[in-house]
Amino acid sequence: MNIGQQLFRTIWPLVREKGEHTAYCVAIIDQTVLPHEWRIITLDSVEQMVDAIRRMQVRGAPLIGAAAAYGMALASQESPSEQHLQAAASRLLASRPTAVNLRWAVERMMRTLLVVPEAQRCEYAWREADCIADEDVRINQAIGQHGLALLQRLAVGKPGRLNVLTHCNAGWLATVDWGTALAPVYAAFDAGMDVHVWVDETRPRNQGASLTAWELQQHGVPYTIVCDNAGGHLMQHGKVDCVIVGADRATCAGDICNKIGTYLKALAAADNGVPFYAAVPTPTIDWQIADAKDIPIEERDVDEVHIVAGRAENGCMTSVRVTPEGSAAANPAFDVTPARLVTSIITEHGCYAPGRLSDILQLVDPAIHPVTMQT
Amino acid sequence: MNIGQQLFRTIWPLVREKGEHTAYCVAIIDQTVLPHEWRIITLDSVEQMVDAIRRMQVRGAPLIGAAAAYGMALASQESPSEQHLQAAASRLLASRPTAVNLRWAVERMMRTLLVVPEAQRCEYAWREADCIADEDVRINQAIGQHGLALLQRLAVGKPGRLNVLTHCNAGWLATVDWGTALAPVYAAFDAGMDVHVWVDETRPRNQGASLTAWELQQHGVPYTIVCDNAGGHLMQHGKVDCVIVGADRATCAGDICNKIGTYLKALAAADNGVPFYAAVPTPTIDWQIADAKDIPIEERDVDEVHIVAGRAENGCMTSVRVTPEGSAAANPAFDVTPARLVTSIITEHGCYAPGRLSDILQLVDPAIHPVTMQT
Repeated sequence: MNIGQQLFRTIWPLVREKGEHTAYCVAIIDQTVLPHEWRIITLDSVEQMVDAIRRMQVRGAPLIGAAAAYGMALASQESPSEQHLQAAASRLLASRPTAVNLRWAVERMMRTLLVVPEAQRCEYAWREADCIADEDVRINQAIGQHGLALLQRLAVGKPGRLNVLTHCNAGWLATVDWGTALAPVYAAFDAGMDVHVWVDETRPRNQGASLTAWELQQHGVPYTIVCDNAGGHLMQHGKVDCVIVGADRATCAGDICNKIGTYLKALAAADNGVPFYAAVPTPTIDWQIADAKDIPIEERDVDEVHIVAGRAENGCMTSVRVTPEGSAAANPAFDVTPARLVTSIITEHGCYAPGRLSDILQLVDPAIHPVTMQT
Repeated sequence: MNIGQQLFRTIWPLVREKGEHTAYCVAIIDQTVLPHEWRIITLDSVEQMVDAIRRMQVRGAPLIGAAAAYGMALASQESPSEQHLQAAASRLLASRPTAVNLRWAVERMMRTLLVVPEAQRCEYAWREADCIADEDVRINQAIGQHGLALLQRLAVGKPGRLNVLTHCNAGWLATVDWGTALAPVYAAFDAGMDVHVWVDETRPRNQGASLTAWELQQHGVPYTIVCDNAGGHLMQHGKVDCVIVGADRATCAGDICNKIGTYLKALAAADNGVPFYAAVPTPTIDWQIADAKDIPIEERDVDEVHIVAGRAENGCMTSVRVTPEGSAAANPAFDVTPARLVTSIITEHGCYAPGRLSDILQLVDPAIHPVTMQT
């Protein structure tokens, strides 16, 4: 995406040493300081990548997938031995439990690397990680086009703006480029449609208020930030034409695991006849899980509830406590929206009714998607 | 309620000058600095009261009613002329548009005062305001007892804790004493029940995280603070036995206008078979409004969305901005939960199915409740 006058992805390899043994590091945009600071950091080891994923300097299911792939490339650069790669894979898999793209990317990297001689693994690893990143960009562009068709249909006969509500950040910052839920919005805006986005702030980490708002602003798309509590009221008053969210994991039955609070918006959409779309790239579909209840829901640090970070009047990043000292808190990071509340799932292969999501199995490359592991 | 070793109400008159012309001011607890500071402030004029209501130093529908009554007493002390009282009434009515208790209290004060000679109005005004405050305490104690019976029924055959979820603050800080939604919780706790409260933080002003958490902590009731997004997930996993909320206005059809986000919790409760109770004192029922769509929904300052206040590490109250500069925001303060989502309405007269709320008309004193204005 265009930031200032420069085109950026959210993650890319950088040459660290040239010559006989060319070595790479990985550059990322530190998403914990946006929108107040623009900071690019470089990661030199798989440990640093694990830390960046855990601390959510990179976040968003598709980007976590790409980050894990580059993490495996860093690992193979450290040592191409099976033992080291297995250890790196385990550490990456444990960094965030809910987004399935992470497992998908790590497993794909392992399948690719273990069948080639150790001496070639590092070269293969960087190539495969680049490939995963490039694929993500193409997938999201396709989601954008399929979603655009949905938005165009909603706009037919509707005077004025088309109002899309989104929760959390499933924009280009959550992916390598373009985003999942926001890809149709960007496609619509670029096609000249009069589109406006209601941005849920998305407590506790405010990815809506900080990241979604920021990237829409950079692109010039009109948006209005609201507290997570407001969406139902907006829908009751006809101010939302559709909801589009991303996913951290989808089951083949069409249940959508996404940022905590998504389920509440899906309920409100159903109650008010507002279409509820989930933008789901194929690597986000978990073909192994039958029951959404089996998806591990990450419990994050309760300080995310107690403490809010932002920019103080003096311009410094500052954290303030909003709860009484000694209070208990709970911080489940995701919830599951049952398929019955989902109008349509937008994938790179087209839009699917939730119950038909498994039709995608006929299209995907079994070499890339471990469909044989389906239960 | 017991704060430290002292019993407090949230509002009380204080003698300012003694002697021939005894004059009073009104003391309140400044709720904008809780839980980080405990500050009592005194108000000497109706203008100061209007300001305190608008700035939400006093808030909560029942407390706003009592505050408006004391505001009218301050006005009558300034000048008992009908002109001055009418002007004071107008200013008070404009301070917060949604809570109906404010209109109810102001109209009751006006009816009381305009029928007595000017020379006696001041004395009558303080007496009537005290009466409104005392009534609120009795009402909430009754709500507590009726709600306790509901909770006792839910606890039958349920092993372990009874988990109540509440949204915003409808505790004693929202009333003169005891609270509405929390009155049953206090009654249950005091009766030795094993009760635990899920406290929605309640963005944008965090009345849950700051006020509800604080007052439960003072009383010793176990609680856990969660982001507003979490309640649906908790209900999906059987962690909520009932929801109890307050109301800023209820229609006689049983629709509940309450803090923004209440509707989302009611949807989740209905979807998961969790009882959803609204604690509604009779002065919160608007007998004049037929359609909840006619309730004016206050749009508050968007800075409440952009900026979060709390205590910084250095101990100072500090505000931080969480959104990008130049962002649009919207801040509707209330939403309406339709009667079909409400299991039961807990009033001081007992529990009512939402559709039977107008049965209360047979019980209320028409001198106190302007039922003749019903449309």
